[in-house]
Amino acid sequence: MVRDPYLLDRNALNFSGGPGVLPARVLDELREAIRSAPGAGLSILGISHRSDWFAELLAQTEQDLRQLLGLPDDYAVLFLQGGASLQFTMIPMHLLRGRAQAAEYLRTGYWSAKSIPAARLEGRVRILWDGENEGFRRLPRADELEPSADAAYLHYVSNETVEGLQFHWVPGRDDVIRVCDMSSDFLSYPFDPTRFALIYAHAQKNLGPAGVTLVILRRELLEHPSAGLPEILDYRAHLKAHSLYNTPPVFAIYAVSRVLRWLIEEIGGLERMLSLNRGKAKRLYSVIDRYPELYLGWAAPQDRSLMNVVFRLPSPEREAEFLRQAERAGCSGLRGHRALGGIRASLYNAMTPGAVEQLAQFMEEFAAKG
Amino acid sequence: MVRDPYLLDRNALNFSGGPGVLPARVLDELREAIRSAPGAGLSILGISHRSDWFAELLAQTEQDLRQLLGLPDDYAVLFLQGGASLQFTMIPMHLLRGRAQAAEYLRTGYWSAKSIPAARLEGRVRILWDGENEGFRRLPRADELEPSADAAYLHYVSNETVEGLQFHWVPGRDDVIRVCDMSSDFLSYPFDPTRFALIYAHAQKNLGPAGVTLVILRRELLEHPSAGLPEILDYRAHLKAHSLYNTPPVFAIYAVSRVLRWLIEEIGGLERMLSLNRGKAKRLYSVIDRYPELYLGWAAPQDRSLMNVVFRLPSPEREAEFLRQAERAGCSGLRGHRALGGIRASLYNAMTPGAVEQLAQFMEEFAAKG
Repeated sequence: MVRDPYLLDRNALNFSGGPGVLPARVLDELREAIRSAPGAGLSILGISHRSDWFAELLAQTEQDLRQLLGLPDDYAVLFLQGGASLQFTMIPMHLLRGRAQAAEYLRTGYWSAKSIPAARLEGRVRILWDGENEGFRRLPRADELEPSADAAYLHYVSNETVEGLQFHWVPGRDDVIRVCDMSSDFLSYPFDPTRFALIYAHAQKNLGPAGVTLVILRRELLEHPSAGLPEILDYRAHLKAHSLYNTPPVFAIYAVSRVLRWLIEEIGGLERMLSLNRGKAKRLYSVIDRYPELYLGWAAPQDRSLMNVVFRLPSPEREAEFLRQAERAGCSGLRGHRALGGIRASLYNAMTPGAVEQLAQFMEEFAAKG
Repeated sequence: MVRDPYLLDRNALNFSGGPGVLPARVLDELREAIRSAPGAGLSILGISHRSDWFAELLAQTEQDLRQLLGLPDDYAVLFLQGGASLQFTMIPMHLLRGRAQAAEYLRTGYWSAKSIPAARLEGRVRILWDGENEGFRRLPRADELEPSADAAYLHYVSNETVEGLQFHWVPGRDDVIRVCDMSSDFLSYPFDPTRFALIYAHAQKNLGPAGVTLVILRRELLEHPSAGLPEILDYRAHLKAHSLYNTPPVFAIYAVSRVLRWLIEEIGGLERMLSLNRGKAKRLYSVIDRYPELYLGWAAPQDRSLMNVVFRLPSPEREAEFLRQAERAGCSGLRGHRALGGIRASLYNAMTPGAVEQLAQFMEEFAAKG
């Protein structure tokens, strides 16, 4: 068995659901930047967000993102604080408040369920599909959805991190505002951004450390502003100020900039990223499928996530033993989300194929030992 | 002239208004933690906020803060995102919404003026004192204020970062909810926290890097909740979840934990911090007072800030020359806030007396050269 020497580093074997693993190269760059950010001659932690240096960093980061996504100019890019959870509120504040129409939500798992109460405070909400009766083990099929032509918007979560469910198609109608929480699979595959009116993603899965949230929105969405929005919660204020309405999380944004460079320079773009992600997930699901009596996959096969591989073992004792032995093998962060229990192996972009191979081999050895 | 060898490091001579200088020891600890956080065996950037390790870190950080402030148990401590600017909104959402009384605001400079519009969205606001007519060059005297006994609350900013004005006394009534934005002088001096119902401070001056905001509030404030608050903007949700309502900015909180340890272990507490801060400010103001025709101090002497020393030179050309030469002498971040221009030397806690001495000597040499 060939093991990448890098795998001796526990950071590479961090299968946490988030904050997740970051590329080794990015960790090195961040350490260096705490001493002295290249071109600035100062610690990244003491650099003014009003400096020319940071303005250039923000512009380059946005440009890298636009290049990766093929994002047209009629979309704005915002770097905000508050996580996806603040977007659960800001989105209906902007797009539902004072509207007669209902917003339509797909309730497909833990996180999409969390996104709904804040919307109800702002207007009418229609749950277009609810997966709870089936235990959130599968996503809807296209023929099960009847999205309205006159909805305020349709909201869904592209990847349910807790349950390990991922949409491999785009639900909703192209003539209705489509809003997508891509927090846990953003930049893990290529997609057509013009099918979305608003995309948001916190950083701590594929983008960087916790503390910054990306919002990408079609500028025309802001033409009919809601009443009574405080500026700090108003996309227009952040857009006008180029994400410098107030002091941004400079370090987290710098980390995102490094991750994007890594994606462009080391990985080579989103097609290649998808190919790597498919290979990693396939390797792990193949172990699950080979030992179906030991590894009980959670998600229906057609909706399996490439990012979060969720499974149970036949008993809590076996699960505890699995986690203990995995930890001894250097693999951490495998405990399932507290809402669901079980095991979850998160395979975000920065998780190397070599690290996944090491986990897969551990799982095979664990199964072979009975 | 004796120069501390440490001063060769440009990070020590960063006089930026914020994000500001951090202690050299903390920068070293943060670099190490990006490789491996002590006791966790993983990069701080990949550690789960739901781990026991992080729960312990949060608890210890809160305990250190309580120790430094002498904070009683009937106060809660929250670590939030969104900066002081989000607090401008959250505070009136909690304490003004649906109330008949007016909130009273002291309008003493750039930042306190910024805090007011969001309050007006939630209820009646009375400007108790407005320094704009006098160009925000001084703070009110106690005998100029007539705070109401029935105000919803009184809000003020303890240190106006832009103008370099600092309250050296506590305005307002002890029988009215007193709310203070201490973003730019928090933990720079000892004070009696029980005179305040709510204190808030973003991190990027004395506490850590941008990205986390501290809110300290008397628990009884939350007994009469406002209607219609989304959970993410509700202090009760964050309190109940021990600041883990959603993924917190782990790295920024870790940095705060290291700064607090530095304050306790290396500085020795807030009395000593104040003494150091007084010495630093005195040194710089003494240069200003010795060359009153060259260095035109902004703040009235009785209201001079220990944190931000703001002054102008007789012409924009002289100011540009000053900044050029200062930069050559290794001193950065001295350009005044864009709203005011001129020069600003910020002397936050982590700025060493040796670094201030180096700036003071530069200013003397600049003055001597005419």
